[in-house]
Amino acid sequence: MTDRNWRHGWSLPREHYLDEGAYDADLEAVWRRHWLFVAHSCDLRERGDFLVFDLGDESIIVVRGEDWQLRALHNVCRHRGSRIADASGSARRLVCPYHQWTYALDGALRACGGLERELDLDRTELALRRAHVEEAAGLVFVCFAADPPAFDGARRDLERDLSAHALGNANVAARQSYVVNANWKPVWQNNRECWHCHIGHPEYIRANCDTANETDRTRMELQARVAELAAKGLDVDHDDVGLAEFPSAGRWWAVNRTPTVPGFVTESLDGRPVALPMGRYDEHDVGTVRARVLPAFWCHASGDYVVTTRLFPAGPTETRIEVTWLVDGRALEGPDYDLAELLPFWQMTSEQDWALCERNQRGVRSSAYEPGPYSPSRERNVIAFDEWYRAALASVDGAA
Amino acid sequence: MTDRNWRHGWSLPREHYLDEGAYDADLEAVWRRHWLFVAHSCDLRERGDFLVFDLGDESIIVVRGEDWQLRALHNVCRHRGSRIADASGSARRLVCPYHQWTYALDGALRACGGLERELDLDRTELALRRAHVEEAAGLVFVCFAADPPAFDGARRDLERDLSAHALGNANVAARQSYVVNANWKPVWQNNRECWHCHIGHPEYIRANCDTANETDRTRMELQARVAELAAKGLDVDHDDVGLAEFPSAGRWWAVNRTPTVPGFVTESLDGRPVALPMGRYDEHDVGTVRARVLPAFWCHASGDYVVTTRLFPAGPTETRIEVTWLVDGRALEGPDYDLAELLPFWQMTSEQDWALCERNQRGVRSSAYEPGPYSPSRERNVIAFDEWYRAALASVDGAA
Amino acid sequence: MTDRNWRHGWSLPREHYLDEGAYDADLEAVWRRHWLFVAHSCDLRERGDFLVFDLGDESIIVVRGEDWQLRALHNVCRHRGSRIADASGSARRLVCPYHQWTYALDGALRACGGLERELDLDRTELALRRAHVEEAAGLVFVCFAADPPAFDGARRDLERDLSAHALGNANVAARQSYVVNANWKPVWQNNRECWHCHIGHPEYIRANCDTANETDRTRMELQARVAELAAKGLDVDHDDVGLAEFPSAGRWWAVNRTPTVPGFVTESLDGRPVALPMGRYDEHDVGTVRARVLPAFWCHASGDYVVTTRLFPAGPTETRIEVTWLVDGRALEGPDYDLAELLPFWQMTSEQDWALCERNQRGVRSSAYEPGPYSPSRERNVIAFDEWYRAALASVDGAA
Repeated sequence: MTDRNWRHGWSLPREHYLDEGAYDADLEAVWRRHWLFVAHSCDLRERGDFLVFDLGDESIIVVRGEDWQLRALHNVCRHRGSRIADASGSARRLVCPYHQWTYALDGALRACGGLERELDLDRTELALRRAHVEEAAGLVFVCFAADPPAFDGARRDLERDLSAHALGNANVAARQSYVVNANWKPVWQNNRECWHCHIGHPEYIRANCDTANETDRTRMELQARVAELAAKGLDVDHDDVGLAEFPSAGRWWAVNRTPTVPGFVTESLDGRPVALPMGRYDEHDVGTVRARVLPAFWCHASGDYVVTTRLFPAGPTETRIEVTWLVDGRALEGPDYDLAELLPFWQMTSEQDWALCERNQRGVRSSAYEPGPYSPSRERNVIAFDEWYRAALASVDGAA
Repeated sequence: MTDRNWRHGWSLPREHYLDEGAYDADLEAVWRRHWLFVAHSCDLRERGDFLVFDLGDESIIVVRGEDWQLRALHNVCRHRGSRIADASGSARRLVCPYHQWTYALDGALRACGGLERELDLDRTELALRRAHVEEAAGLVFVCFAADPPAFDGARRDLERDLSAHALGNANVAARQSYVVNANWKPVWQNNRECWHCHIGHPEYIRANCDTANETDRTRMELQARVAELAAKGLDVDHDDVGLAEFPSAGRWWAVNRTPTVPGFVTESLDGRPVALPMGRYDEHDVGTVRARVLPAFWCHASGDYVVTTRLFPAGPTETRIEVTWLVDGRALEGPDYDLAELLPFWQMTSEQDWALCERNQRGVRSSAYEPGPYSPSRERNVIAFDEWYRAALASVDGAA
Repeated sequence: MTDRNWRHGWSLPREHYLDEGAYDADLEAVWRRHWLFVAHSCDLRERGDFLVFDLGDESIIVVRGEDWQLRALHNVCRHRGSRIADASGSARRLVCPYHQWTYALDGALRACGGLERELDLDRTELALRRAHVEEAAGLVFVCFAADPPAFDGARRDLERDLSAHALGNANVAARQSYVVNANWKPVWQNNRECWHCHIGHPEYIRANCDTANETDRTRMELQARVAELAAKGLDVDHDDVGLAEFPSAGRWWAVNRTPTVPGFVTESLDGRPVALPMGRYDEHDVGTVRARVLPAFWCHASGDYVVTTRLFPAGPTETRIEVTWLVDGRALEGPDYDLAELLPFWQMTSEQDWALCERNQRGVRSSAYEPGPYSPSRERNVIAFDEWYRAALASVDGAA
């Protein structure tokens, strides 16, 4: 992809939303080189717990080993390439169902019917192939690159603001899967501005100060809320009206705490809590921690529940999205939370966004589409996302 | 597309029915350069009435303006390319649902959240992009070309023979949509000959003299019918057995009046009328006006009802077809017409044709297909259609 | 396809399982050049009986002529390419439904509405195009090649071991169609080894000695069974544990008789017969005749029933498979056989294989797949299949 047609501060040229070639370039430059959120630590609590996830043609087994470490193993038998595991589970060995080649939890080949003697093979050369994996603040990330970007900075920031939620011991209260008929970039562009929130998200804006309709009153209210949280020892990283700046300056992750509006102790339809306080918190009102890790993850973590969003591209015009609601590990459905109260806020907000993304995608299909101007104020983060994306593509062109 | 393999008077080389490349060439040379029938004027009676239609990746809003003129606007917001309207409707402004950019009915940008001040933009450069539109005899045509073919001749002929039906005030009695698994050209090739009618259309041939089974008796009967109509002041443009010559000599449209057979005052299963006389007619027996406008339209207009057929290509081997039955604007379902009598003649005839086209397409898929000979008498209009198509492709090759 | 990445004795490079280009090469080098099983003679008993079958874009009418000979005619009218027959049937003439062009059962054009006089055409040049067809031991094979491989050897071996079953007079007891989401080659690779049988086919291995778990006891039992059959005059061509060698030395077909295990007179769940003895047999225990004709056919023929498997590729990652159960022509459902006893053995075994093939295909999609080592003993026939395939591709490259 050349960037001849790319105009800074204007939306992307059409081919980036539609073309197979551009999609392949995205997979190569973005999705095969960056850290991809795949699961929660609490999905893999015990030794031998494994999880199968597919990304395009790839299939990965993320498994907790005998040494409690996570590993990411390609779900491809070294014999004739059969997929080994169809679904998540728990096991002491990974056994291919075709000819029973057997692998340890670290991927080492333990048995292949004696073929190593028949062919004088070195079994160590036939271990399951690995991808990189990192675990931070109860979140699991995988990277397909031979030489992944350094994860330390992301780990530090995620653990700083999210470890209090104790996601490693959380419970998954609900999961919702979506196939959104849009390229993955409009999903991020939608996520990175709240100009559309005032009309597009009537529930969301009752709880949050993200819209650009700043007034002296909202600013004063925000400052009061910041002071309330500060008095509890909770540092607010972002106390401005509108979204925190992201991405910026080579950072593909960001974490910040933001106050909810006065009267809302969590992101719910009426501002009242919807579950027990999580982890180390002993009260509900802790603001909302928002994290993003490009290109596959964002979350909103209030005092009583966390919602994570995972996106995977599934073609030039299709994105698979999984939204997960997590509550404290001690919370029981019924006594401690009710799905009818827990789900609506983010289910409605998410589905409103998917509809906007699909409409955006349908419009861009037209040959009449041409890039339009972003607002330097209200869409500054969209401009920054496009710049990050452009740089990712360019880094591969340069490497090639 | 070269025409090395093209043999005059023989059916088209196989690639023209199947290949993606040939399909793209058709879109470019035919569908993006010619006038496409999209709607009836009576679908857009009032100021602000608009209709959304999709052609391949394109989406167009055809809207009647404050000045009662129709305009064809690309359904793509100039901000980030979102589709503006999902469905037809009526409005004084067109508002993009994403960020509420607002356009007048003529496409002028009226509001974009003050972005024009933020960026020092000229709002007139961000109007909705237009396509060309023409309205004639109650029929609406759109052209995507920068420089469309002159429409005057088509308008003159359509209005000459169809204005008496008063389609602008007609009522849509029924609509039927089809996805036909055939390239769009076999649909026209089927339409342009009636060799297949004797066996393929048992209902149609009872009312019409299109088959080539000419006898002295049919010729004499026809002449008597022509005289009957002439006595009423209705000029019969085509009084021969078989189809009127079309296309011919650079004409991509044709309109002619043809008598029905003795005993049939309209195209119905038993020859009896099925609705009130339309528009300025005060009796049923006016013959049938047949019009075709390549590449997207044909109709049959009897004294009491009009059937229009609209076709859009939807891929190398798929064509979307909409058949619409119109009656006089004063006619009420029940007292004045009964769908069980109005629909069968053209529903059966149309569906018989779609089945023949699909069978033709299935056969041509075979590598064993090779062009076969057309009958110079019975398929003269198919030969002419192929010539028109060949010339359309060649004109682009020449221009390129 | 070059074979740079091809390592002898290791599974195929990834592109051969996935790519459109490799698939087209397979169609050209294998499927358009070899003899393809299409039907059973008993599907076409009488003069005028015809059968329509599709292979990719091709459609063929196999018809028994007035002279009782089978012919394979392309199902494409020589006029405008319409498909002539949609489904199998019986007729004295083949009439195109579009314009009633009429062909004799040998494909000769008999009527075209007098077009031959209008254009001074030679009707003999407009006969239906033919493919090659052969009939042997009640099995019908078609070849699209202009110059097919000699069929004599295959005919000799098929008739030697299968004519006693009298398939020409058999009855089809059941047919089952499958769409398997795998390339056609993993289906053969699966068929050509029984390493997977011990775990993958618990029913199959109760009746057969194909697994590699050879012991002195199984060898002794086998020898006793061979002697039993020999005493009846039935030569056992393959008396070894494991599959007969195939393909080998330029042979794309193979037929052999194999004993079942002691206590099993046929391939059933409990070893008891499931139908009348077939054809010239007057007892059940005749071992099992196994035949394969690359690339589209294999069968297992026990004394009381025959199961044929026909496979056609339907894309790089899709194979259409038809499994047919045949019984003696005199056998009546109810008194003589019960589908609940006849079907399970091969329905279960077949479906177990399709699941393994689909899992193999899913694994190979991963970019982490790389060819793995075959067992020279247990997968010798898979190695031979891959060699045959490689040679087939190379013969086209050489010819090109």
